[in-house]
Amino acid sequence: MEKSIPDIVVGRLPRYLRSLEYMLKNGIKTTSSQELGESIGISAAQIRKDLSQFGEFGKQGTGYSVRYLVDQLQSILHVNQSWDLVLVGVGDLGTALATYQGFVNRGFHIVLAFDNDPAKTGKKIGDVTIHGMDQMEAKIAESGAKIAMLSVPAAAAQEVAENLIKSGIRAILNYAPMQLILPRDIHVEYLDPITKLQHMTYYLG
Amino acid sequence: MEKSIPDIVVGRLPRYLRSLEYMLKNGIKTTSSQELGESIGISAAQIRKDLSQFGEFGKQGTGYSVRYLVDQLQSILHVNQSWDLVLVGVGDLGTALATYQGFVNRGFHIVLAFDNDPAKTGKKIGDVTIHGMDQMEAKIAESGAKIAMLSVPAAAAQEVAENLIKSGIRAILNYAPMQLILPRDIHVEYLDPITKLQHMTYYLG
Repeated sequence: MEKSIPDIVVGRLPRYLRSLEYMLKNGIKTTSSQELGESIGISAAQIRKDLSQFGEFGKQGTGYSVRYLVDQLQSILHVNQSWDLVLVGVGDLGTALATYQGFVNRGFHIVLAFDNDPAKTGKKIGDVTIHGMDQMEAKIAESGAKIAMLSVPAAAAQEVAENLIKSGIRAILNYAPMQLILPRDIHVEYLDPITKLQHMTYYLG
Repeated sequence: MEKSIPDIVVGRLPRYLRSLEYMLKNGIKTTSSQELGESIGISAAQIRKDLSQFGEFGKQGTGYSVRYLVDQLQSILHVNQSWDLVLVGVGDLGTALATYQGFVNRGFHIVLAFDNDPAKTGKKIGDVTIHGMDQMEAKIAESGAKIAMLSVPAAAAQEVAENLIKSGIRAILNYAPMQLILPRDIHVEYLDPITKLQHMTYYLG
């Protein structure tokens, strides 16, 4: 059944979860699609429609239990478990990612890091040792990690991504400003500040 | 007329532009909606529909001139000019942003940086000097910058964002894992790796 949910709906669930977790942290026990919508900038109707695809989460008139909805969304998104991450590219951005506490607090643990600079290999970054790219396939396969964060230069991104897939990686969070061309069953999300900035300059011109 | 274009269409244009600029750099002179779509993972029909909202960019059967389409998209997105950026929060991520060459190569220039750590103020990062937060409103107003990148801790993001708007900022690229509640005429884009990772774990679970 989950297979039939449109990807655009799936993409909104983490945003609902982020707001609901914030409510929970601030002691808010119940909420409405109206209130949730206002905190995110999505219409209440859209939220009700999105959630209804996964089940019945609230009662008409009494709203949603924040705790229950957090639990359900964590379960739907499979983040009620811990995930191993592989980091490829330990430049300035990779260093920031390796030391960012937000990952581990949300159940994502960097277990391996790779860089092609011999001066970096063998050094520690965050909790892990940086390995050379030549060890990538073997180390990742051994770890069983399924998710990689790619923070290499744009020109290297496609080749590295292909090697990641050979190593067993199924999902790539791509920080390189480069569209990747990969098999359809590989999940790729992009974090490119330029496309986000250009989206906003449209309105500022 | 531009006002009536759905935001979701606007959001796809920078992705078209990124692929087209890559083609241009690689000497590709003409392309089709089919080819462009394959490089991005968007259907040819969707691309034709999106572009048709802005005019007539190609001829049936002969495809698009890459150079012409790049020029048109740059003009539509107002990136045929240079934009000043303000950076707020110079931790690990802020440092990575300040030294990232990708901004200046694409016409975005960091002109001001702020941090609330007295140990950082007065120091240089990239091409700019880090100022204290107490100088934020005056310095930004003086600069006339309209776009800010926010890389402060989540707990500080809302308050800092409100101060940015008082200083004349109209668009915020938010790296803090925190939904901002701001006036409707302020443009906000989010770069939160956790929501992107959770989008992918949905499919991996």
